[in-house]
Amino acid sequence: MFETLFDHIERKVLLTQQEKVIMESFFLPKELHRKEFLLVQGEHCKNLAFVVKGLLKTYNIDDKGNEHINLFAMEGWWASDMLSLFTGKPSNFSIDAIEDTDVLLLSLANYNSLLEKIPAMERYFRILYQNSLLTKDIRLMSASTHTAEEKYLSLALSHPDLMHRVPQNLIASYLGLAPETISRVKRKIKRNTAQ
Amino acid sequence: MFETLFDHIERKVLLTQQEKVIMESFFLPKELHRKEFLLVQGEHCKNLAFVVKGLLKTYNIDDKGNEHINLFAMEGWWASDMLSLFTGKPSNFSIDAIEDTDVLLLSLANYNSLLEKIPAMERYFRILYQNSLLTKDIRLMSASTHTAEEKYLSLALSHPDLMHRVPQNLIASYLGLAPETISRVKRKIKRNTAQ
Repeated sequence: MFETLFDHIERKVLLTQQEKVIMESFFLPKELHRKEFLLVQGEHCKNLAFVVKGLLKTYNIDDKGNEHINLFAMEGWWASDMLSLFTGKPSNFSIDAIEDTDVLLLSLANYNSLLEKIPAMERYFRILYQNSLLTKDIRLMSASTHTAEEKYLSLALSHPDLMHRVPQNLIASYLGLAPETISRVKRKIKRNTAQ
Repeated sequence: MFETLFDHIERKVLLTQQEKVIMESFFLPKELHRKEFLLVQGEHCKNLAFVVKGLLKTYNIDDKGNEHINLFAMEGWWASDMLSLFTGKPSNFSIDAIEDTDVLLLSLANYNSLLEKIPAMERYFRILYQNSLLTKDIRLMSASTHTAEEKYLSLALSHPDLMHRVPQNLIASYLGLAPETISRVKRKIKRNTAQ
């Protein structure tokens, strides 16, 4: 399980063999079946989860009972409610498995120890967070300036694998669109491609 | 000028005297007069700016000519269009000075050198970005779940100094509220406090 983690980290920073051995002691492997919860909205989030295999979704249920998808996390992605993890407040999100999923859990205490013991991981998380800030900015911008078709196409181009693995109604929720809008956009793209 | 920067950094990490000397060579001091631009929407953002004294606002103008405030940055805060800085794309924001403002500019090349030469700065920016991600989550959550009164009160409690220094119409834009709503909320608070 750790090979995926190390491969992912070593795209950004190099780790020595000794550091990898230390790292392994900080993570707890966990298997989730499809539809199983990693975190339930309202609970205190206690871990960062690295996805080794499978697919998770992070979402919240609003006062009217509607589900809003915040994030998908597949192989090589991290999932967590950082706000709950770092402040100790109840989580605003649930996280569950869209497919059978293997994760490596890193508790807050172990995250802090890891950063103390392995300076390369400071660099890794600095880069990871820096990229997350950019992704959030792009998503916020896209939400207000792009049409439904542009949003769908942009996701399809950047993450074609997600499109095959995630049900259409969840893609719609993630993009903030009605499921009918997605169907309409897909029909239009198909028509244009067929010409 | 550097004392404010070092004070701010040393709330998170310690720097040696030698590291401080290296740091100083990476930053370029700049004075902005009130209403002067640090960045113009559409230009390529080339710096991270640390505010030593004064107050900046980051904002964008939409297709209809409306100004949307994204961020205020006062003493000890950083301002930049990170998306433009790190991707080289045109900036989506302008940054200008609400008050006469002194900043220390860090170019992308110097930012990268700084991180290479001073490992403590990896930790500093990791913590800074980690906190920024939490702040963005709180703001997104607040935008959809809080009333106008709650949003205003929350900002007034967390940043009372901003309330005195920033004109009311800019506070309204930052909170995504109409200026009349802010006036109504303030009257209501005044009434309640007077009782």
